[in-house]
Amino acid sequence: MDQHFGDRLCAAVTRRRSHAVVGIDPVLSRLPEFIRRDAAARYGKTARGAAAALLAFSRLVIDAVADQVALVKPQSAFYEMYGQWGIAAFWETIRYARSRGLLTIADAKRGDIGSTAEAYAAAFFGHPSPLETWEDPDQWADALTVNPYLGSDGLVPFVRRAGARGTGVFLLVKTSNPSSGELQDQPLFSGESLAQQVAKLADSLGEPLVGRSGYSSVGAVVGATYPEDLKLYRAEMPRAILLVPGYGAQGGTAADVVGAFNADGLGAVVSASRSVIYAYRATDPSPAEAVAAIAGAAEAMNRDINAALRAAGKLAW
Amino acid sequence: MDQHFGDRLCAAVTRRRSHAVVGIDPVLSRLPEFIRRDAAARYGKTARGAAAALLAFSRLVIDAVADQVALVKPQSAFYEMYGQWGIAAFWETIRYARSRGLLTIADAKRGDIGSTAEAYAAAFFGHPSPLETWEDPDQWADALTVNPYLGSDGLVPFVRRAGARGTGVFLLVKTSNPSSGELQDQPLFSGESLAQQVAKLADSLGEPLVGRSGYSSVGAVVGATYPEDLKLYRAEMPRAILLVPGYGAQGGTAADVVGAFNADGLGAVVSASRSVIYAYRATDPSPAEAVAAIAGAAEAMNRDINAALRAAGKLAW
Repeated sequence: MDQHFGDRLCAAVTRRRSHAVVGIDPVLSRLPEFIRRDAAARYGKTARGAAAALLAFSRLVIDAVADQVALVKPQSAFYEMYGQWGIAAFWETIRYARSRGLLTIADAKRGDIGSTAEAYAAAFFGHPSPLETWEDPDQWADALTVNPYLGSDGLVPFVRRAGARGTGVFLLVKTSNPSSGELQDQPLFSGESLAQQVAKLADSLGEPLVGRSGYSSVGAVVGATYPEDLKLYRAEMPRAILLVPGYGAQGGTAADVVGAFNADGLGAVVSASRSVIYAYRATDPSPAEAVAAIAGAAEAMNRDINAALRAAGKLAW
Repeated sequence: MDQHFGDRLCAAVTRRRSHAVVGIDPVLSRLPEFIRRDAAARYGKTARGAAAALLAFSRLVIDAVADQVALVKPQSAFYEMYGQWGIAAFWETIRYARSRGLLTIADAKRGDIGSTAEAYAAAFFGHPSPLETWEDPDQWADALTVNPYLGSDGLVPFVRRAGARGTGVFLLVKTSNPSSGELQDQPLFSGESLAQQVAKLADSLGEPLVGRSGYSSVGAVVGATYPEDLKLYRAEMPRAILLVPGYGAQGGTAADVVGAFNADGLGAVVSASRSVIYAYRATDPSPAEAVAAIAGAAEAMNRDINAALRAAGKLAW
């Protein structure tokens, strides 16, 4: 692969003319009936069966959006529910997305210290020299979401491995949930908020990893549900790519996310999960109906965001 | 199982006369040569082989310490490196520890919001009504470490599920690593530190889950490497069981951890990983040598902590 995640992301977004990230958050009870039926017929209503259903659905979503978006973001938690079978489905989802030309963000929000952080970095980015280890050389994602609470010695192992592998880190700065402010908005003695402090950390950790695009492989998560914050954090981290969740089902609009973009029309990607992947209305759509609904939702999201950027004079193409 | 994690922990600690938690952090290159050789012979130097080695080592550690300690804490990251095989080994380690009468803390430091936090809670605690789901009813740990950065709506799903299942949560408050203070010690406008704010959150979330023992199923992680902090957080969260990492290889001593205990001699468990599980010196110990060294290290840790508590007038038995 190209040796720099930030550059790869900018190129892929520009090529597809899409700033959308499709979050793959597969909840068994919400999957199309034909998928659950097939999985149960093959493996019974077991963890293995559930994982087969999750994988079938993930592939369907990827097929539906592969020509329209540049990135997908599978959410690890939903796969982890089904143990080893779920994890196999998670990595197969990542590999399948890569094979369809998509960049993959593993949304696993890992965070730990020292040698444990090294192990997580190895788990999600692979080894710089795969032949030297017993790891599966094919087990890696293009990027990983990382939790900053443990401080920089918990972050450096991820950043270092990302630099060596050409992968990316998205540090949680300001999340999209209602109570994100409880800790993240706490004003510090310095007058800044905790999340601003984390933003500074992301900016300095990312400085050595700025690519030819001008963007770093260390990005940051900032929720669309706090539009004023988006502008603030955009200014705090000019070279970071912001991963902006909260568009769609969580209530964020295209107008809300415009502030996340730089004047060059780049520097942010906007994530939606439920509003895209469950866009089919029926509980028992046909495969073609499900694909068409999901593809349509992704296309509508592209149009919506691009129109808002054009109105703001920030369209990159 | 007994319906309350805090009560189960207090009973198990008292029965074994041990406040030690053995952290199982298996790093392939540090495992006894006979274990790596056997695994490579069976599965090659592959992820499956590595996972087989991790499981064999985890079982050896559990056999060595099962009669001496009450709790083990497998670290998820080291298993996740090996994908589906690693996860199978992780859950088999948890199940084996349970079968040997040990309480299990899954050290996975998960944290997310809303339905994603629900999914993590399901992944680590299982479903309150296992027959209603496709999940493996045997996939659950007695407790899970949880990251607080996303605020209370990311924590409530874990606490609620813990209450329904009789499992426990250990919230990261003040971690043992050198740069933990970067964010956690930040003074807030209120004059308290961020970690104190998290401690208050742990205390209030844990209040409805106080058991007959007087201790809650919501505990907190506070590092042994900051002895003054231990006393402070002990006072902030009188009903929380403190999980205290950093003893041993990270430099914390028995005298350092005494402040984590209440006057009743309970309320804390002390975790060590490398200083116990790698206590054998040789790179190629025999199985019996490895077991004896690990058992000896666990026994020495018990003696060390109990002596310090006795000296402080805090021995519970």
